[in-house]
Amino acid sequence: MLLHIDSSADPTADSVTRRLTADFAREWRALHGPADYRHRDLTATPVPPLTGGYTRLGRRVEREGFVPPAKVAALIESPAEAREWELTLPLITELAAADTVVLGVPMYNFSVPAALKAWIDRVTFPGAFAHPDTGESLLAGTRVVAVLARGGAYGPDTGRAALDFQTPYLKAWTGRLGVRPEHFHPVAAELTRVDVLPLSAGQEEAAAASLAEARAQLSRLAAVG
Amino acid sequence: MLLHIDSSADPTADSVTRRLTADFAREWRALHGPADYRHRDLTATPVPPLTGGYTRLGRRVEREGFVPPAKVAALIESPAEAREWELTLPLITELAAADTVVLGVPMYNFSVPAALKAWIDRVTFPGAFAHPDTGESLLAGTRVVAVLARGGAYGPDTGRAALDFQTPYLKAWTGRLGVRPEHFHPVAAELTRVDVLPLSAGQEEAAAASLAEARAQLSRLAAVG
Repeated sequence: MLLHIDSSADPTADSVTRRLTADFAREWRALHGPADYRHRDLTATPVPPLTGGYTRLGRRVEREGFVPPAKVAALIESPAEAREWELTLPLITELAAADTVVLGVPMYNFSVPAALKAWIDRVTFPGAFAHPDTGESLLAGTRVVAVLARGGAYGPDTGRAALDFQTPYLKAWTGRLGVRPEHFHPVAAELTRVDVLPLSAGQEEAAAASLAEARAQLSRLAAVG
Repeated sequence: MLLHIDSSADPTADSVTRRLTADFAREWRALHGPADYRHRDLTATPVPPLTGGYTRLGRRVEREGFVPPAKVAALIESPAEAREWELTLPLITELAAADTVVLGVPMYNFSVPAALKAWIDRVTFPGAFAHPDTGESLLAGTRVVAVLARGGAYGPDTGRAALDFQTPYLKAWTGRLGVRPEHFHPVAAELTRVDVLPLSAGQEEAAAASLAEARAQLSRLAAVG
């Protein structure tokens, strides 16, 4: 199953990440079959913020050790916790079922958008992706294609790599969930704000090259699966 | 003015950061006067997620160069943009008016809570904190006390410093807004999850010492102003 997640506040016409993830999904479905596909738009349908019911239930589950999602309901002690779990379990089930996840992630203030962080904070429930018997990650075979856009450039030679809390963050978080490093594929389009920020002609060429390279990488990744 | 911001999903009884920020605010107000104080609870009253109206208005403002908040309304072109600006301007005004900001920030999934990122994404409007004449930051004199809690340890000697997307992130973001590095005061309580995570006796002592040290640092910072 392909899980396609968008988190840009912009509509598709104004969003580099939405256009790229849509292209990826179209190519993927043309090659691997259109049926097995879910699209989650975190701006059109925001993930509700966490409340105390979520954290209380999460701590109880942590104290019990590895509790698989199917057995969490038995630990619920209040209507507030039941509501939180009802909002959370479908996100966990959806991510666990994905073979490939394509994440559309514009850089907002050096990091991922709050809309994506709301999904991350909710789906990362204690033990949610641990195999109930072995404790191994259910995401060990999952591929994550992170489609990143940023207005500036943050590569190793820019002197701004330390301001990138987007790519290294997603690598750390997916790694913690058990996604293998070789299954995490960041694809970045840089200098995407040439329309509003004053850039030199050289930077406009670099922006176009970065976008073309991102498209080519995504086509290769869509072909693999 | 003291601006006190909480972002933990937990109620005060369960939240290290809420207890510490409340203590800081109490001491600060006892020393500097109780009147000039705002408390913003990002869990009780979440900042609404961004929509396309915010980003469209933001890009228009960027194209114009430095537009002070007072002149943004004249650039609004749709009801959607007007709604977004109505949600945003009070947050900008409040932050610009603060002499000291105390931020309560638990680590969620190696980073700041989505609730805090929603505030960051909305308040960081283009040009919002630039002096209309000089372009200098209106936050150059603002002190930011970041009260951080994390279940594990992420210090330089832990081998886990690269997983800390909380302290370095807040330093980068406040720096970008124009807060001076010497006015950014991170105060971290580490190993706060001794109640649920299996830790050794040595770690329990380290957790207690970390919390005591955080309290002492915050008392010193509250005394300064």
